[in-house]
Amino acid sequence: MTLEEKNWQDRFATRASRMNASEIRELLKLLDQPDIISYAGGIPDPAQFPTEAFGRAYAEIMADPVKSAQALQYSVSEGYSPLRCWIAGQMAALGVACDESNILITAGSQQALDFIGKLFLSPGDTALVTAPTYLGALQAFSAYEPSYDTLALDGNRTPDSYREAAAAKGGRVGLAYLVPDFSNPSGETVPLSAREAVLDLADALNVPVIEDAAYQALRYDGEAVPPILAIEAARRGGIEHCRTLYCGTFSKTLAPALRIGWVCGASAAIAKLVLAKQAADLHCATINQMVMHRVAEECYAAQVASNRAVYRVRRDAMLAALERHMPPGVSWTRPEGGMFVWVGLPAGLNGAEVLARAVAECRVAFVPGGAFYGEGRRDDRLRLSFSLSSPRQIDEGIARLGSLIARMAGGG
Amino acid sequence: MTLEEKNWQDRFATRASRMNASEIRELLKLLDQPDIISYAGGIPDPAQFPTEAFGRAYAEIMADPVKSAQALQYSVSEGYSPLRCWIAGQMAALGVACDESNILITAGSQQALDFIGKLFLSPGDTALVTAPTYLGALQAFSAYEPSYDTLALDGNRTPDSYREAAAAKGGRVGLAYLVPDFSNPSGETVPLSAREAVLDLADALNVPVIEDAAYQALRYDGEAVPPILAIEAARRGGIEHCRTLYCGTFSKTLAPALRIGWVCGASAAIAKLVLAKQAADLHCATINQMVMHRVAEECYAAQVASNRAVYRVRRDAMLAALERHMPPGVSWTRPEGGMFVWVGLPAGLNGAEVLARAVAECRVAFVPGGAFYGEGRRDDRLRLSFSLSSPRQIDEGIARLGSLIARMAGGG
Repeated sequence: MTLEEKNWQDRFATRASRMNASEIRELLKLLDQPDIISYAGGIPDPAQFPTEAFGRAYAEIMADPVKSAQALQYSVSEGYSPLRCWIAGQMAALGVACDESNILITAGSQQALDFIGKLFLSPGDTALVTAPTYLGALQAFSAYEPSYDTLALDGNRTPDSYREAAAAKGGRVGLAYLVPDFSNPSGETVPLSAREAVLDLADALNVPVIEDAAYQALRYDGEAVPPILAIEAARRGGIEHCRTLYCGTFSKTLAPALRIGWVCGASAAIAKLVLAKQAADLHCATINQMVMHRVAEECYAAQVASNRAVYRVRRDAMLAALERHMPPGVSWTRPEGGMFVWVGLPAGLNGAEVLARAVAECRVAFVPGGAFYGEGRRDDRLRLSFSLSSPRQIDEGIARLGSLIARMAGGG
Repeated sequence: MTLEEKNWQDRFATRASRMNASEIRELLKLLDQPDIISYAGGIPDPAQFPTEAFGRAYAEIMADPVKSAQALQYSVSEGYSPLRCWIAGQMAALGVACDESNILITAGSQQALDFIGKLFLSPGDTALVTAPTYLGALQAFSAYEPSYDTLALDGNRTPDSYREAAAAKGGRVGLAYLVPDFSNPSGETVPLSAREAVLDLADALNVPVIEDAAYQALRYDGEAVPPILAIEAARRGGIEHCRTLYCGTFSKTLAPALRIGWVCGASAAIAKLVLAKQAADLHCATINQMVMHRVAEECYAAQVASNRAVYRVRRDAMLAALERHMPPGVSWTRPEGGMFVWVGLPAGLNGAEVLARAVAECRVAFVPGGAFYGEGRRDDRLRLSFSLSSPRQIDEGIARLGSLIARMAGGG
């Protein structure tokens, strides 16, 4: 390798490494071993997928000469109109009156985060994110070289304190991002008063709120809290006056691998995001949009009900197992939905070290918490996902993990 | 709307407008009217799609309990391994010996261009592009705020002249992009000697060549020219020493709407692009990758042969019609493949004005040439696509267009 080649590769590597919060994901690939009890992946149980409905939808579309020609051909960047309309109806049911001009179809909600980073973050700008926050959002935003500041949900910081911190880092605040329902990784839900306060802050800073609603439909108990976009629309008299961008997905309710999500917002903002979509990949797979529309029409409500019933039992099993098996000094959240419990370790323990020993000594896996911070990283947390494990596996794995943590806390 | 809101929207609009080379595409949406003879879209004929093979592949995968669970679940960002291996075999047949570590699956080749812009272009850097060049590449790159300089294929510029021009614009040269086979929009093919010269230039500038091979398989006559990546691999003793990134796609050969393309390059570069993929949308639709693999294995060669036979007749019809109907002062390229003929207008005529009158007076549509330039824009060109029209429609539309151009050139 010549020196010139090496320079080129170094430069390339530096640019890519901004996105590389993914050491954990690399580790997790090693853990797909059958004897491991894994609470690592935040992914749906494939036994829950409406496979027959998907199979029928693909078959019916491909058997129709007109529909199959449409399904295999280029289509518009905004997305498949009937699917956009169906989603607009769902958003209306959540308190966001809107129509298809307020919806862009994206490749999962992950792609919406990429476009939002592209449009709102310049190098040196600050993204406000909760601590902890979704790892994938940090990856998406980091490609645009922002700094991070912690979005405090207790209302204890003034707009000026954010503004000044951003200026000190050489830019301005570009956006405020959060997962308000059953957050990844904490499992916590942001209460109404804090949603109101985030909107006030965003107003004061003149930035959009990015509402990542990936888990919104998966509520197992408690009262639903209105989406931030619904609160803003009520305040301002309609979605066209809002700047919140709501990112939704079918990945956790119907199936992730068709890569169909959406952004909902003011039509002027959606029109700009459509340009980002066109520049990035032209449009989402036409056939998958047509299929998702059919399957959503046919069985979305039933699927959500089924998911809730199945995952609720697993959530309950995990909370009960933590209660039963964890030694003193361990704390955890009690999520009302979603897929995650966030565990605090006894003083002095490090999540990555616990993972290494958990895999080696008791064949249990999870994600250590350190990767989930834009700023103010803490290494004494673990993310446990209950979505893929049976109650029996949950009790067994948590028993092993509790025993290991007790040993480690005791210096063993 | 408050002033703050307006500021916010202005800022958002400014960022998005970098990508907005799409006024033409907006115009084209208006042209989907049944009585228009359109040579506008550079898209494949849906009658050519292997619809039955796609239908069988979806049905077989969805009917298999193991495969359907895999097809609907999250998967790795690199792409579906059997598809990557199949593509590596195709690349080897083109003279690029490689394996799956050299292949990333992307959402069409468009998404590869987006990732490449993200990794290689900082604001103020210069992207070298031919004049004219692919509009979608300009859209993808422009999100990263580069300047453009014209990649001269006649070898008449020194590396220093590019370097100095980039420095004068506040950055450095980030990449050299071209469509070497049957280019969009010109239809022209870059000869071997010019491919060698582009590699020499890229070496001297220490930048990668971005080889957009969207039309590579659609050759109707003449001798195939080796891909730039193959030439570089031969020079350097293997793909791992190359920095050319080859962007391929199934969009023009099998079907565009599954959104499956690929990048082929050194495995170290592919590893970085995988991070960009993960940050942007996690992975391409798993089911579509599995389906594309089956269909490619079953009928890629037959499909390419069929496409060549059908589009060759249309290319011939368009060249014959131009010969027959165009007045003096009109020139055009004679493509050996692809979908486009690039037409030069008589002195004083403007492509956008010709389009406006062509639609209004003779119900013929095409894309005026002005949108296809990063720098050195010329408005006296038209792009005609022959991929979607029958020979009869081609003769009829070109007759009307020739008559209009004759009238306009005569001052009418």
